[in-house]
Amino acid sequence: MKKTTVVTTILGKKSNKLPDQDVASVFAPTNIALCKYWGKRDSELNLPVTSSFSLSLGKKGTKTELKVSDTAYDVILLNNKEVDSSSEFYKRLAAFLDLFPVHRAMRFYVNTQSNIPTAAGLASSASGFAAIVMALNQLFCWGLSYQKLSILARLGSGSACRSIWQGFVEWHAGTQNNGMDSYGEPFPHTWPELCMGLCIVSTKEKYISSREAMKRTIETSPFFAEWPNKVNMDLPILKQAIINKDFHLFGKVSESNAMSMHATMLSAWPPIHYAVPETILIMKKVWELRQQGLPLYFTQDAGPNLKLLFLEKDKEQIQQYFTSIEILQPFLE
Amino acid sequence: MKKTTVVTTILGKKSNKLPDQDVASVFAPTNIALCKYWGKRDSELNLPVTSSFSLSLGKKGTKTELKVSDTAYDVILLNNKEVDSSSEFYKRLAAFLDLFPVHRAMRFYVNTQSNIPTAAGLASSASGFAAIVMALNQLFCWGLSYQKLSILARLGSGSACRSIWQGFVEWHAGTQNNGMDSYGEPFPHTWPELCMGLCIVSTKEKYISSREAMKRTIETSPFFAEWPNKVNMDLPILKQAIINKDFHLFGKVSESNAMSMHATMLSAWPPIHYAVPETILIMKKVWELRQQGLPLYFTQDAGPNLKLLFLEKDKEQIQQYFTSIEILQPFLE
Repeated sequence: MKKTTVVTTILGKKSNKLPDQDVASVFAPTNIALCKYWGKRDSELNLPVTSSFSLSLGKKGTKTELKVSDTAYDVILLNNKEVDSSSEFYKRLAAFLDLFPVHRAMRFYVNTQSNIPTAAGLASSASGFAAIVMALNQLFCWGLSYQKLSILARLGSGSACRSIWQGFVEWHAGTQNNGMDSYGEPFPHTWPELCMGLCIVSTKEKYISSREAMKRTIETSPFFAEWPNKVNMDLPILKQAIINKDFHLFGKVSESNAMSMHATMLSAWPPIHYAVPETILIMKKVWELRQQGLPLYFTQDAGPNLKLLFLEKDKEQIQQYFTSIEILQPFLE
Repeated sequence: MKKTTVVTTILGKKSNKLPDQDVASVFAPTNIALCKYWGKRDSELNLPVTSSFSLSLGKKGTKTELKVSDTAYDVILLNNKEVDSSSEFYKRLAAFLDLFPVHRAMRFYVNTQSNIPTAAGLASSASGFAAIVMALNQLFCWGLSYQKLSILARLGSGSACRSIWQGFVEWHAGTQNNGMDSYGEPFPHTWPELCMGLCIVSTKEKYISSREAMKRTIETSPFFAEWPNKVNMDLPILKQAIINKDFHLFGKVSESNAMSMHATMLSAWPPIHYAVPETILIMKKVWELRQQGLPLYFTQDAGPNLKLLFLEKDKEQIQQYFTSIEILQPFLE
């Protein structure tokens, strides 16, 4: 199944409508998986091996302005600076726009403004692709459901299908070959006291993309076969922990899920280890503080940065221990 | 099955013989597993889940002097300094001596001299227990076979059963409940050009003992079930690589086996991560140099120190890249 077939199926006759408004302006939050998406069953359509579960980060994400351009090529800006058409960023976005029949008839001006570091394991592509899909939907007044937007965003980057919503979102793996049952769904529970501390230890581009790392892991890790069982065990516990506001269980499952994902990478060949020295120092500090009784956990994506998980009541104390972190309270933003 | 039963079975009537010589003085090398011992099927007798394979480190190891003492307690020295009887070191060694019926009738003076840091993942207990068993055998003229000495050493510390020999040694997992088929056996191939570079980044005691780490991993890692398959796949390839002097394959299997062992720990709960920042820096440097074409691999035990694997021809270059490593050429020492 091709991406274009999915797009055509979803858009139907809507696809060739001319823009009803001058400019679309949308925002999509980045999301951090608490139960990770790791491994594809279809790498063309970004269909995952397992379901996953995330938390969107409020105001952290991507704001995208989209309008029709009278240039011969798409004009793409990242944080108000024009992006070279030979860059990966440009090529990936232009290729995505190419999936949409409207792109045959016109070129776009896209200004992507992100308040998170690109490609540093902070899911910038997730919010980016969610935003561009939402912007297309707004510009052309397609009136697509969030579920359909989620499917379209997934074609750009798997985890983008979760960035259509704020709060907790579950991405259902689905079973269909065309992926029409593989989309995000908001998990209808909030947790206002929940905090996330962003420990940005490096904003450098990752030394291996998550796409590559995922592929290598599936192909070479002796442990990857067990990963789906781990996720299928963790996901219902995580949801129940949220319902019960059981922070210890919530933190434990999140951290354990992340560390197991990294374990599959460490056992790949060649091994993949996203940690930088600072990552290790923070990890060990978290473990030490937790042993001393502080309810503090973390998660780590395919990158060296850690995201601390804790409750509002410990905010001040944690800010003192980790002076350079940025604390978010996703449900209050 | 109790340890004392194993000792009695092996010693038979030899056990009560009085010492024929004044003092025994022996040396046992430390050994570094290339295919790791990780997981016990019997923690009383230190019977492993899988076979393992190691390289002994020539002159690096433990020299033990043993004689009968007329004191009321065992006098134990570590590097010529008397060890307090309340210390873990003293208690573990004294408990081991207690397995031997001769210890009922007399007390010992034991001087253990080690030229490797204790408890820093350099298998000091392996050479230590191998040496004390060899010293007892010498002092009492038991004339036990190396295979029997290997079984006795295993009762002190699993990997000690490989420290009875120099060179490559395979520890056969065995299947019997009494462990009489679980011992080391020299692998009859040498590799004079093979070098090991010791990167000692920390000589501090490990933050969790390998015994504890192993236990926690078995009990909580979702990936441990796959570990025996990994070892059973790696071990024959490693041996064939040695026979063929295929250094790339040898290095790859060794490093991959070690990283997979660490992956089982990372996926345990709470996660176990022996790396310190310097460990990560060296790892990444190895991967970078290898990508540039240098045939360089590493192995890592349950500790933060790395052991680089390379060939004699690259010795000078590697010494320049890693100025503080100590290079050993185990088959030439």
